[in-house]
Amino acid sequence: MNEKLTDEVYARAALTYLAEPADRWLAQLVRVSSAAGALDAIKSYRAPAGGPPRTKAGMAMMAAMERWQIRLPELPAPEDVLAFRESGIRLVTPQDPEWPGQLADLGEDQPYALWLRGNADLRFNCLRSVAVVGSRAATAYGAYVAAEFGASVAARGVAVVSGGAFGVDAAAHRGALSADGVTIAVLACGVDTPYPAAHTELFDAIAAQGVLVSEWPPGRHVSRLRFLVRNRVIAALANGTVVVEAAARSGALNTARHARDLNRRLMAVPGPITSDLSAGCHQILREWQGMLVTSAAEVIEHLSPVSALPAAEPGVAKTGKLPARRQAPSVLPRDQLDLDSARVLDALPRRGGIGTVRVAQRAGLAPATTATLLGQLATGGFVERCDEGWRLRRL
Amino acid sequence: MNEKLTDEVYARAALTYLAEPADRWLAQLVRVSSAAGALDAIKSYRAPAGGPPRTKAGMAMMAAMERWQIRLPELPAPEDVLAFRESGIRLVTPQDPEWPGQLADLGEDQPYALWLRGNADLRFNCLRSVAVVGSRAATAYGAYVAAEFGASVAARGVAVVSGGAFGVDAAAHRGALSADGVTIAVLACGVDTPYPAAHTELFDAIAAQGVLVSEWPPGRHVSRLRFLVRNRVIAALANGTVVVEAAARSGALNTARHARDLNRRLMAVPGPITSDLSAGCHQILREWQGMLVTSAAEVIEHLSPVSALPAAEPGVAKTGKLPARRQAPSVLPRDQLDLDSARVLDALPRRGGIGTVRVAQRAGLAPATTATLLGQLATGGFVERCDEGWRLRRL
Repeated sequence: MNEKLTDEVYARAALTYLAEPADRWLAQLVRVSSAAGALDAIKSYRAPAGGPPRTKAGMAMMAAMERWQIRLPELPAPEDVLAFRESGIRLVTPQDPEWPGQLADLGEDQPYALWLRGNADLRFNCLRSVAVVGSRAATAYGAYVAAEFGASVAARGVAVVSGGAFGVDAAAHRGALSADGVTIAVLACGVDTPYPAAHTELFDAIAAQGVLVSEWPPGRHVSRLRFLVRNRVIAALANGTVVVEAAARSGALNTARHARDLNRRLMAVPGPITSDLSAGCHQILREWQGMLVTSAAEVIEHLSPVSALPAAEPGVAKTGKLPARRQAPSVLPRDQLDLDSARVLDALPRRGGIGTVRVAQRAGLAPATTATLLGQLATGGFVERCDEGWRLRRL
Repeated sequence: MNEKLTDEVYARAALTYLAEPADRWLAQLVRVSSAAGALDAIKSYRAPAGGPPRTKAGMAMMAAMERWQIRLPELPAPEDVLAFRESGIRLVTPQDPEWPGQLADLGEDQPYALWLRGNADLRFNCLRSVAVVGSRAATAYGAYVAAEFGASVAARGVAVVSGGAFGVDAAAHRGALSADGVTIAVLACGVDTPYPAAHTELFDAIAAQGVLVSEWPPGRHVSRLRFLVRNRVIAALANGTVVVEAAARSGALNTARHARDLNRRLMAVPGPITSDLSAGCHQILREWQGMLVTSAAEVIEHLSPVSALPAAEPGVAKTGKLPARRQAPSVLPRDQLDLDSARVLDALPRRGGIGTVRVAQRAGLAPATTATLLGQLATGGFVERCDEGWRLRRL
């Protein structure tokens, strides 16, 4: 969020107040007339004097206008939006550097904006991330596995994305925190409105070490539908989703379906066939081509952009067997980099390191830009400092 | 086994005494000179007078002759072989009607003959069968699942094949027996020489209700290598293999590998990733394209020859989704039928039943032959009696 609130940024904040996420009529309106134009249109809309519109689309847009207008009294003033910064709450929009580019995969259902609370950078942490989700009523087995996976992947620099709920979600967040890793809670309520309330301290700990994310403005409460619509953001932010425990009709399967539809890695942890809470996981494995994972190392292996990075893992080449990740298309972190960052990455040698100026020369970029991008790539886990300067980081 | 012992049948019995199973030099010898010829050659073999042969093959055949000759003193007389019938032990050879044709898939490693003890017909019970195998040190979970699967598939007329060992094997056999079903124990010792000895009563129960099978003649004891060589017969006899629980280096994985190499359905039961005894199952699911099964119904679904039988299960057609079994080649029971049996099966209508004479007319076979084949097909679970006469049986 900029110090100065532009009309467009304010309008996006305003739209999170007026509309529920994934409202396609609003997405269309924003596409044709920008967020500021959409906000103006909503504010100035009047029902047609000559009676209701005759077309279906006209009727639908009228209904949409009316449902958005009804929340106009809740709209904060621009200075109120800016004032949230004092409570540690910031707004990011698609125009911000912190906006995770992979949300574009949601198409018309992309969030209008995101409200964040926490110290971690959302964009860069999502570049190496995995969603660990599952049942609220997790068994001891599910809670153990979620905590173990959360801790192990976080210890390797992979951010743990989850929904902040009881059970698997909480265990995964806590595992990541225990490993001093980054964890991202995507909430179905305002980032200042903890739900469940028993997780108030957990959310404070996540904000200190990771980041809380919501499509809803501060003060909003959860609802059943909001959980469902929130799930697509969990699936889209992370490079892959692991379902640890889920009953046959669990909300975690909804997240899993989004992950699959978004071409993200979909993984599931098997369990006893006698446990109802593993039935959903087995369904993912049998029917949705999910990958069976039995350890955090396997999760990371599925996420690794080895085939995309110039420095291939020697072990993979040696086996003579194509790694599983080649068999299905997937969104690899590298695909999400902007052109200049990709150039910097390409400029690094397969082995050993080189200095910033040499990288700049090879990439054809200004040294200052190169230094900035190298710093960002380091945050994203792609490169690391070495004696010679910078080198590619192997996962 | 015929009442009269032909030279060829006696020779096959004799070869089970002289050679260990899957001895490829013996398979070659039998192929070129019949079993009787091979036996004669072994009996009359003398080391070449002019010193050892000069070729590698000549050397190997000399070594083979010597290792077979060393057991000539153990050879029973033809009347001794016939006398085993009094102890309820019969010999079946590839020429017998009870020989399971699918053993031909083992190629050169096909058994020379099989020793059987028990009341069930091996060939027809194997036509609808599944191997349920796993760790000797099964957990309570593994034993429960094996018993439940054994009982449920046996209750639906599918024979349960296993190895008679402690743990998963015994639980599967006992499950089938408890459902009054047929179970087949393939042993790595003589069918009169129970191993483990603690299973003496279990083996007697299996003989009463199913059949004990061995490639080794009566009186032979187990050895580690014999267990391994035995596993290929378990995999080959059954239409599919389910691994219930197996550690990472379990013998059950050896059976699973045979099942995969023989293009049989390979299935595995998932379990907690925290259990070492599920690690082998998860390996099958991850690396060997095994099918994850969570119920006996799923096992039967994978085995069902629906796509091969004229009477397709209505449910399958309705889903509009190809059943999983089409995605991989497999040996379906129907593929194992001789031409006349297949004609009889084809002659039956998709719906309803018809009389034997009508079947004979449609199949172009003599009524007596047709009646015999219908009886055999009923034993194999392909057809069943009905008011009109005979009809296709749905799984």
